[in-house]
Amino acid sequence: MFEAAELGRKISREEFDAMAPVLRTELLDLQQRLREADFPVIIVFGGVDGAGKNETANLLNEWMDPRWIVTRAYGRPSDEEADRPEYWRYWRDLPPKGKIGMFLSSWYHRPLLDRVHGVISVPEMDEMLERIVHFEKALADEGALIIKFWMHLSEKAQKKRLKKLEDDPLTAWQVTEVDWQHFKMYDKFVGTAERLIRHTSKGHAQWHLVEGADPRYRSAVVLNTLKEAILKHFDEREAVKKVAAELKKPAKSKKIEKPKALASQPSILSSLDMTQTVEGEEYNRQIQEQRGRLSQLYRKAKERGVSTVLVFEGWDAAGKGGTIRRMTNALNARDYQVIPIAAPTEEERAQHYLWRFWRHLSRAGRVTIFDRSWYGRVLVERVEGFCTEEAWRRAYGEINDFEEQIVEAGHVLCKFWLHITAEEQLARFNQRSEIEYKKWKLTDEDWRNREKWDVYEAAVNDMVEKTSTGLAPWTLVEANSKSLARVKVLRTVCDSLEAALRKKRG
Amino acid sequence: MFEAAELGRKISREEFDAMAPVLRTELLDLQQRLREADFPVIIVFGGVDGAGKNETANLLNEWMDPRWIVTRAYGRPSDEEADRPEYWRYWRDLPPKGKIGMFLSSWYHRPLLDRVHGVISVPEMDEMLERIVHFEKALADEGALIIKFWMHLSEKAQKKRLKKLEDDPLTAWQVTEVDWQHFKMYDKFVGTAERLIRHTSKGHAQWHLVEGADPRYRSAVVLNTLKEAILKHFDEREAVKKVAAELKKPAKSKKIEKPKALASQPSILSSLDMTQTVEGEEYNRQIQEQRGRLSQLYRKAKERGVSTVLVFEGWDAAGKGGTIRRMTNALNARDYQVIPIAAPTEEERAQHYLWRFWRHLSRAGRVTIFDRSWYGRVLVERVEGFCTEEAWRRAYGEINDFEEQIVEAGHVLCKFWLHITAEEQLARFNQRSEIEYKKWKLTDEDWRNREKWDVYEAAVNDMVEKTSTGLAPWTLVEANSKSLARVKVLRTVCDSLEAALRKKRG
Repeated sequence: MFEAAELGRKISREEFDAMAPVLRTELLDLQQRLREADFPVIIVFGGVDGAGKNETANLLNEWMDPRWIVTRAYGRPSDEEADRPEYWRYWRDLPPKGKIGMFLSSWYHRPLLDRVHGVISVPEMDEMLERIVHFEKALADEGALIIKFWMHLSEKAQKKRLKKLEDDPLTAWQVTEVDWQHFKMYDKFVGTAERLIRHTSKGHAQWHLVEGADPRYRSAVVLNTLKEAILKHFDEREAVKKVAAELKKPAKSKKIEKPKALASQPSILSSLDMTQTVEGEEYNRQIQEQRGRLSQLYRKAKERGVSTVLVFEGWDAAGKGGTIRRMTNALNARDYQVIPIAAPTEEERAQHYLWRFWRHLSRAGRVTIFDRSWYGRVLVERVEGFCTEEAWRRAYGEINDFEEQIVEAGHVLCKFWLHITAEEQLARFNQRSEIEYKKWKLTDEDWRNREKWDVYEAAVNDMVEKTSTGLAPWTLVEANSKSLARVKVLRTVCDSLEAALRKKRG
Repeated sequence: MFEAAELGRKISREEFDAMAPVLRTELLDLQQRLREADFPVIIVFGGVDGAGKNETANLLNEWMDPRWIVTRAYGRPSDEEADRPEYWRYWRDLPPKGKIGMFLSSWYHRPLLDRVHGVISVPEMDEMLERIVHFEKALADEGALIIKFWMHLSEKAQKKRLKKLEDDPLTAWQVTEVDWQHFKMYDKFVGTAERLIRHTSKGHAQWHLVEGADPRYRSAVVLNTLKEAILKHFDEREAVKKVAAELKKPAKSKKIEKPKALASQPSILSSLDMTQTVEGEEYNRQIQEQRGRLSQLYRKAKERGVSTVLVFEGWDAAGKGGTIRRMTNALNARDYQVIPIAAPTEEERAQHYLWRFWRHLSRAGRVTIFDRSWYGRVLVERVEGFCTEEAWRRAYGEINDFEEQIVEAGHVLCKFWLHITAEEQLARFNQRSEIEYKKWKLTDEDWRNREKWDVYEAAVNDMVEKTSTGLAPWTLVEANSKSLARVKVLRTVCDSLEAALRKKRG
């Protein structure tokens, strides 16, 4: 693979100087056009030391307008970063639409170096690369342009470079023992890099191999590749929009109907026993017991730095708010946070739809409660047509990836669907409209949503089917009985905490 | 002072139960009204251990809707917090408009405990309290409602509480050696607290002393005080809006004119020698020299964790962008960030106007470059009437406080006003409109701003006069000569870095 980047390609000063002003103006123009674009540009640099990663990033900042560029490099995680899933810090630094994000040492850093130093095995590295592929795919699917440059130097060129620096008294300080250690691992590094590039060079996020020995040549290649990629991406986005508009038009063919024998089969939701309840003294006893358990368990979890993420979804009037309050009663106000999910803010709309959930993941040992969540994409956004079919269809996989990372970071994750029957909802709506201080809770939208009950129900069934994974199962809560719902939710959280603490100890 | 909170006041269960449902409904209603309000509510709890700070915060979360409440408590700063001025973490947690922020252990924590433990002297504590007063005043001036509760227990009641906990085998674990140590310091604690309350109880942010021995009594007092304060604040905001609308009406009296003899006096800007320049070889020599200096100095600063904050203000077309780029050339892209300040985002508009600058302060050792800045308030916002006269008048003090904190945290702060004459600006505008790839830079707004040159000039003179402090002086840059401007800016940054590093060493 790397032979292609060891050909000794060069550009003379004259050639470069002739090309530079034109290319520079084009890039500046493109950047202006980008500011209005509906996508971000993500540039990743990887490669051999001394092959010009830093120099090229600097040049890009010099030639373009640094105000619309975010440049990031990562060292050891800060304690705030270490408290969260590994990718939290990358998510928080992602450029919004219209900006360029440049990543020197990125999500590729750890798999590469850990493998080179033998900290992880090849399958472990492959697994980390798989995560990268999913991550980049999710960003690309929402429109991001991802360009990756691998800057290469041959072993010979590397040796020559280090010698030359050492021989000049003015630059000798730049070469340290570590550089020579790295040099000795050259073969291992390059071998690992090749695997990395093979596994992560995808149509939506290609690696560009750049011969790094000649500064003018590598600069010209990077800048020109960047220009072409941005131009091409603008065209592609246009095409995508046209197709999307086309798909939105009402289909001419008749609605596809399911045969009755298939349509009437039981679904996950319809198979719930909605008559269950727990009343009076028995309820008091159980809720007290679970609250006591929770209060002890979450304190232990806090001590050990185990965070908890709770997701509440459910029908309007299913009792999410009340259930959440019954739980937070058992917690200390400083240890939890309820995040109500409504329409995204302007800053959130300029990012991938999962960004606004990533940002709320809390520091170690805290409880984060999402009142509605990332599942909005496959529920309301799907049903109301707020996103394309393609977008909500791929969301299942993206959500599973996201939750896998939460669980792998050692956090406890519980997801609750509070289920009520259509009749029960009607009764509760009517009740709300009669009680003065509950009126504000009932809106026209609630009534409109209710008319689409069947469509929502289908979406919920799909959601449970596709995202109730072994790592992050859904708990379906029979919430016609509020008391039963409260006890069941509390008990589930306690059981999960207990299991996580046992695992942590063991 | 505290005798008023040692009277043994109590509320019976019957009384409380009669009052509770009404109060609770009122609070929930208020919270709904708050969601649409143009101000945040900031609740601060202080006081003696065991006087019910946590319990009351929990009760508030229980009674109200926790989705619109943010609860925070602070321990040792995280490393990301320690890299910034002390108040950075409080700023980042401030509730936006429409929400309630509850602070258990807040900005009062350190002055109080450091004084009680003898870490700081009384004058040092007073200085920290002064900062608090400024901080709360700035928030209140932009509309925030600040309510502070001091929960008190008499020495006797405290002793009784600890004994009682110890005697019950189920609660004995709650009492530790530390609790008895604290108890021994009761007098010192209460004495210091009195001084703290005296110094920081202001009209805009009053302390409410709450007798904490009886849970029902203290809950009733806190909840009722909160209710009344919110209701009152709604009324006051209405009144403020009316006054503001009244003030906006054109005055009936004639414009107040300055006597000619006063109007024609030289100003800070008019006294600059705008004919200076540095050309050709001399420019090349100087700029190379300063770039070399900068490149070495900022590396040293990075090693020692010294951050740099640079502020660029100036006339349209004064060359801010070009000057910034000449400087960033000497830096590594991963070490700096250019923050272009345009209109605030939705999330930023929901906060105090300084919030969006606080959030950009970077981790240790980095260079943050503001292309336009917090001075917008006393320049464009003042001139264009985007904020009230009262708001921009008080901004000078708020800005000085902000910058003092940046400097005290050990950061280097340089502020540049790039000055050009009106003739030079016209020449540059005309030039821009002729060069293809510079056209985008020139907007109708630039021409409109130009018509208000005199008003802007007066605003700039005021700004320099009021915010060029010993800690954070303005550097006025004669920018009719771009080359001179670039050299002067670079040299100033280098000199400041050098001075800071010398100080750090010494």
